[in-house]
Amino acid sequence: MTPPVFDADFRQQLATLFRWRRDVRSFRPDPVPDELIERLLEAGSGAPSVGLSQPWRYVLVDDPSRRAKVRASFAACNAAALSHQSAERAGLYARLKLEGMDQAPVHLAVCVDPAPMQGHALGRLTQPETAAHSAVLAVHTIWLAARAEGVGLGWVSILEPAAVLLALDLPASWQLVAYLCLGYPAGESEVPELERFGWEQRRASAVLRR
Amino acid sequence: MTPPVFDADFRQQLATLFRWRRDVRSFRPDPVPDELIERLLEAGSGAPSVGLSQPWRYVLVDDPSRRAKVRASFAACNAAALSHQSAERAGLYARLKLEGMDQAPVHLAVCVDPAPMQGHALGRLTQPETAAHSAVLAVHTIWLAARAEGVGLGWVSILEPAAVLLALDLPASWQLVAYLCLGYPAGESEVPELERFGWEQRRASAVLRR
Repeated sequence: MTPPVFDADFRQQLATLFRWRRDVRSFRPDPVPDELIERLLEAGSGAPSVGLSQPWRYVLVDDPSRRAKVRASFAACNAAALSHQSAERAGLYARLKLEGMDQAPVHLAVCVDPAPMQGHALGRLTQPETAAHSAVLAVHTIWLAARAEGVGLGWVSILEPAAVLLALDLPASWQLVAYLCLGYPAGESEVPELERFGWEQRRASAVLRR
Repeated sequence: MTPPVFDADFRQQLATLFRWRRDVRSFRPDPVPDELIERLLEAGSGAPSVGLSQPWRYVLVDDPSRRAKVRASFAACNAAALSHQSAERAGLYARLKLEGMDQAPVHLAVCVDPAPMQGHALGRLTQPETAAHSAVLAVHTIWLAARAEGVGLGWVSILEPAAVLLALDLPASWQLVAYLCLGYPAGESEVPELERFGWEQRRASAVLRR
């Protein structure tokens, strides 16, 4: 097959996709079609992985009692995080909306098998974290593919990973990489929510030369 | 600003980009323009990051003696990895080309500050690895943006991170996330090199339901 050549119009749209990919915390209740979710997961499975090990493990969470347990872990961790805030930032922290688990029609846990058989361990002897990093690459692929379909994704990291693994009854050897909410976004912006609420702002990245 | 709507043609091209994004280990010697590299790093800096902390740290490595030290770390780690192979896979492992450091005109180390001030620690108290994961998201953004410009990227993970940090004289608090080679690819394929050489093949990912 002839390698594809991407033109300036595609690159511009890709840049727009990168710019408008948001961490979404407010969702409309409309369901997301199963076949769309399947398409996103399949796109994720084409992500780069160390040694072609494809170590990501997808878990779609529908059961209300399991979702409630994950929600409870967020509530506990977020209360602890609030108590760690300085006096001047606590009020702002308390006003932030940091997840949309109650509204999101789709909950997806992305785990990693940190020592998969597939790939025969190639490439991860000195940097074993590359297995988890491969799962992160799958998450990002799903994120971009979702946004291109008008679907928003929010990554909830204010969770106790052990509590989530327990709530989902997953193999003990797996590790939680990302707990994701997906659905059609209620409102969109080019500006990250943490920037709009005054928590933090995007900055240019320095480049060192060696 | 009005949120963009992406059409089916864009989604198809995005899927093609995902499919043709490869880990590149063979490069043509042609230089990559500085402004193109700057554009890629800027795209990476728009990646999602925990608490909007942008914890990735870019290091462009030009000095031949520093490159040689990184190359020496690869050689040592790869020899150790070869010695770990089973008798039946060692011959195949030895024939794999796992990096293109000698040819690649651009070497980019992506590090992480695991405890950045920016972001005020939001979102990483219970999953501190989300800082490194943010840097992985920047790497993937750079990877896709590069391929859209016809530039290939190869991620070298067969390295001793401490040796690389030392060779590059970087702050002790930083961690190496990814050592990357960039350049115009010598030959392209839709099929991963590890699959073409019979090391491993891509598989469909199972989806658990809970």
